[in-house]
Amino acid sequence: MANQNGTTSPDLREAFLGVYSVLKSELLNDTAFEWTDDSRQWIERMLDYNVPGGKLNRGLSVIDSYKLLKEGKELTEDEVFLASTLGWCIEWLQAYFLVHDDIMDNSHTRRGQPCWFRLPKVGLIALNDGIILRNHIARILKKHFREKPYYVDLIDLFNEVEFQTASGQMIDLITTLEGEKDLSKYSLQLHRRIVQYKTGYYSFYLPVACALLMAGENLDNHVAVRNVLIDMGIYFQVQDDYLDCFGDPEKIGKIGTDIEDFKCSWLVVKALECCNEEQKKILFVHYGKADAADVVKVKALYNDIDLKGVFAEYENKSYERLTSSIEAHPSKAVQAVLKSFLGKIYKRQK
Amino acid sequence: MANQNGTTSPDLREAFLGVYSVLKSELLNDTAFEWTDDSRQWIERMLDYNVPGGKLNRGLSVIDSYKLLKEGKELTEDEVFLASTLGWCIEWLQAYFLVHDDIMDNSHTRRGQPCWFRLPKVGLIALNDGIILRNHIARILKKHFREKPYYVDLIDLFNEVEFQTASGQMIDLITTLEGEKDLSKYSLQLHRRIVQYKTGYYSFYLPVACALLMAGENLDNHVAVRNVLIDMGIYFQVQDDYLDCFGDPEKIGKIGTDIEDFKCSWLVVKALECCNEEQKKILFVHYGKADAADVVKVKALYNDIDLKGVFAEYENKSYERLTSSIEAHPSKAVQAVLKSFLGKIYKRQK
Repeated sequence: MANQNGTTSPDLREAFLGVYSVLKSELLNDTAFEWTDDSRQWIERMLDYNVPGGKLNRGLSVIDSYKLLKEGKELTEDEVFLASTLGWCIEWLQAYFLVHDDIMDNSHTRRGQPCWFRLPKVGLIALNDGIILRNHIARILKKHFREKPYYVDLIDLFNEVEFQTASGQMIDLITTLEGEKDLSKYSLQLHRRIVQYKTGYYSFYLPVACALLMAGENLDNHVAVRNVLIDMGIYFQVQDDYLDCFGDPEKIGKIGTDIEDFKCSWLVVKALECCNEEQKKILFVHYGKADAADVVKVKALYNDIDLKGVFAEYENKSYERLTSSIEAHPSKAVQAVLKSFLGKIYKRQK
Repeated sequence: MANQNGTTSPDLREAFLGVYSVLKSELLNDTAFEWTDDSRQWIERMLDYNVPGGKLNRGLSVIDSYKLLKEGKELTEDEVFLASTLGWCIEWLQAYFLVHDDIMDNSHTRRGQPCWFRLPKVGLIALNDGIILRNHIARILKKHFREKPYYVDLIDLFNEVEFQTASGQMIDLITTLEGEKDLSKYSLQLHRRIVQYKTGYYSFYLPVACALLMAGENLDNHVAVRNVLIDMGIYFQVQDDYLDCFGDPEKIGKIGTDIEDFKCSWLVVKALECCNEEQKKILFVHYGKADAADVVKVKALYNDIDLKGVFAEYENKSYERLTSSIEAHPSKAVQAVLKSFLGKIYKRQK
């Protein structure tokens, strides 16, 4: 049903979407807590606002990948439900990260609506809501996977990936520390490290690792798969950096502020590489300032050195390298999983 | 070595303290992340600032409880290390909660020093640091308990208790929502629910549950123990509410702001119960205002209705009730564990 261009079949997508309501309803009736009407309403609103509104690529990837690992065999209802549940766990994880990131980055919009913590009655309660989202994952896994032979591996996997993401977030945050703005620290190596940990593991490795565990695989035997996926994750984040500056805010659902925020973006790292001394000075003066006039100067410089062209070349090379890594893998089923992933992101506009 | 008055023997305490450095050093060399000097320094400073500076009651309770469950048998070095490690996991959990709570409550001091997020270079990075503290627990458990038969139960336990704590925090936060200050919602029932979930499970049940798991027990057989500990946790939080208003800031390490923050404190709930109509009006007007003059009016009212006396009576009754519940337990070893706990908190001043 899933094909290598990375689109999920309508019936699998529908099944996946239906699982959200089931999981939500279970969580709202979790007997580990004595609910009140107020608290149940709060959680329901918080979930509906933050969990299902994204592109759902990560979540759908679990079921797509699992299907491909099963080499086209018809999935049982139970398999569809369990793979969808793992997919939703990743969407919950993503929601948790985004709710927290938006607080830390002092962002305004997310997925085309105000960030959760910006809502009048929410504010810093959003911090605790993020924690609750994270805890929901453990509740969901326990309810549906406690008796599976791979339960421990699943929990260890989510824990390790969360640790890696938080560690990536840490280097991102301490690199862009207020009052210590120093462009000369920025390099491709630092950028790679941030994005590999902050995005790569949870967005790319985690969905496939979930599918592999469900298929009975030992993750220790799949280091090559992880490496390709992490490489893909880096490419994905470079796209993200590109879209933050050059993408359509309508399509990406937010207004990029990487330049204002002094982010260690792939664009600024590449710009530093391509600039002459004169241009470098412009970057050092205007990068990381809140003023719109400074942002305009940085963007003009990006155009002068044809960063769009540099990105287009990077995109083509990445695609070629990833494709040949994928084709080196012995299993056609695993190749199909990885190609499906690549198809989902290649030349994306959002 | 531990006795029923709840003091840990000096040698066990020293062993416990020594384990902190071992765990810290392991975390700073965790191979799941590519460290830089900056990030390693950040984490070390963050850990030293937030983890070991408390009273360590929760952490020490694990080893004290385990020792009592072993009925005085000499513990092996390995047992001391593992019980201490679980104790530190609870201290890590506590540090994580406090770092986040201080952000949400906009607090100033904690344990006699500025809150972590108040440090100039930290700010909202503290949110992510809290997440990292939480993730450290999973890293520690995996490293030292992965091969134990009770590993899954240990992870499930920490997850469940964290979920309950975050849920308690949620009702606390949504009850004291800005702009919806309504004292008439406050009741003993609401207070009990908040403190049971927000404090009881992690501070009282968790240390004993850890010791029981290490001793090979099935937690499903110890519901009575959990109930006594939760009851004790409620008593503990009532003390906390009392000390927030009447305690010595030097001793408790912070300046209480429950009145200003419109907290659903046991004191205000009891005051509402004891007040005449005239006095109730004073509470409705002055409770939850930031102005020092309002706080003075509330405290004067608390004195008028002799809340200190009401608390003293509550404390005595709680002690009697808890003691008789404990003595109803069939196992002398378990009784000793519970009495040790009670001894640690009865009539505490900090």
